[in-house]
Amino acid sequence: MCQVSKFALVDNNLLLFYACKLDMQSPGHHHSILSFLVPVCVFITSTLFVGYYNIFLVIVALFLWFFETVVQDRDHKYLTRAVEEAYKGVECGDGRPFGAVVVRNDEVVVSCHNMVLKNTDPTAHAEVTAIREACAKLNRIELSDCEMYASCEPCPMCFGAIYLSRLKRVVYGAKAEAAIAVGFDNFIADALGGTAYYQKAHLEIKRADGEGADIAEQVFEKTKKKFSMY
Amino acid sequence: MCQVSKFALVDNNLLLFYACKLDMQSPGHHHSILSFLVPVCVFITSTLFVGYYNIFLVIVALFLWFFETVVQDRDHKYLTRAVEEAYKGVECGDGRPFGAVVVRNDEVVVSCHNMVLKNTDPTAHAEVTAIREACAKLNRIELSDCEMYASCEPCPMCFGAIYLSRLKRVVYGAKAEAAIAVGFDNFIADALGGTAYYQKAHLEIKRADGEGADIAEQVFEKTKKKFSMY
Repeated sequence: MCQVSKFALVDNNLLLFYACKLDMQSPGHHHSILSFLVPVCVFITSTLFVGYYNIFLVIVALFLWFFETVVQDRDHKYLTRAVEEAYKGVECGDGRPFGAVVVRNDEVVVSCHNMVLKNTDPTAHAEVTAIREACAKLNRIELSDCEMYASCEPCPMCFGAIYLSRLKRVVYGAKAEAAIAVGFDNFIADALGGTAYYQKAHLEIKRADGEGADIAEQVFEKTKKKFSMY
Repeated sequence: MCQVSKFALVDNNLLLFYACKLDMQSPGHHHSILSFLVPVCVFITSTLFVGYYNIFLVIVALFLWFFETVVQDRDHKYLTRAVEEAYKGVECGDGRPFGAVVVRNDEVVVSCHNMVLKNTDPTAHAEVTAIREACAKLNRIELSDCEMYASCEPCPMCFGAIYLSRLKRVVYGAKAEAAIAVGFDNFIADALGGTAYYQKAHLEIKRADGEGADIAEQVFEKTKKKFSMY
């Protein structure tokens, strides 16, 4: 009995560690083989040495691992779409290399890119355009059941629009610094840079993990010869 | 000669005082009869007791007074138009009580109000709508030779749009607190509340003087029964 408790304690800690890892949404966080190995090792040791209590814990850990994988694959899919939009926008000469996708219940509501040049409208950033089009399509002024995938960190105007439209979640790819490096105004970095309204926004906003962030960062370098600054 | 220097010194100080007063653009600063009396008194005393040097100083003071009056009257005229738009927007049911006017070379380019409900677009605030329409009308994506008159302090999204469109000057009427008092999100107050991008914006942004601010503040109280929050 003493042994069971001891192992249960160890596995509880492992589970906690795993839950913390899931919550760890720092830039550059890669989805590695470790995410799979941790619960599997726990499962083997617990089955061999302890009993049902630990098996239960391991099933929970496996479920968390599965959930993490599904969320990451989903994020990657939609972020890739936003990045494709960024390239498309520059190719057609509609605007600068920024894309944004609004998703609701695993369906793409709208997929947009920067339309500043096309529409002669300095407010037609990808995110603002996506919010406008999604609201028009869904025929309502709030998007609280929707998520946004943006190829780059939103600028203060776009983050204001995100806040006002009540999007529940935003995943972005490139950091503002990647855009600033090719000549964009450093104003882009100011929304998430500690403004009062960012601090009080209740939505979940995270930078994409590993590969998604990498492909989004490359957009600026790959397109910088195809557009000029305003 | 000693007397001349003494008076010249006194009048120099008065002129300096007057110049400081001109620069004093704090909320609630009323354009009073004092603005007229100060240079007139200086003129009378200097003509009677001193000579040409002081007369020159007084002419400069009178010119400053005239310039201040012209600017204030102009600001008041366009701000009144923005306030009228705010009322109009609520009356037609297009949106909430906010208006904005874009002016170029003393001509109104566009005069708009909040169109959130009409356009089913949470980004269609008065200022954003005015920027969009002014750019479409002038067929360019920047408004560096234009000014904006807004019935209320711009929210962070609108201030982002103002920054991006490079408007050279913004005059607003009501403080954000007047809108918050009737139930609007206190997010409105966050643009001018010390955000990084407000700090580095080069445009002139000021609250209207006395009467203009008063009529703008009244909009919310007078219309609050005619609209509901989103």
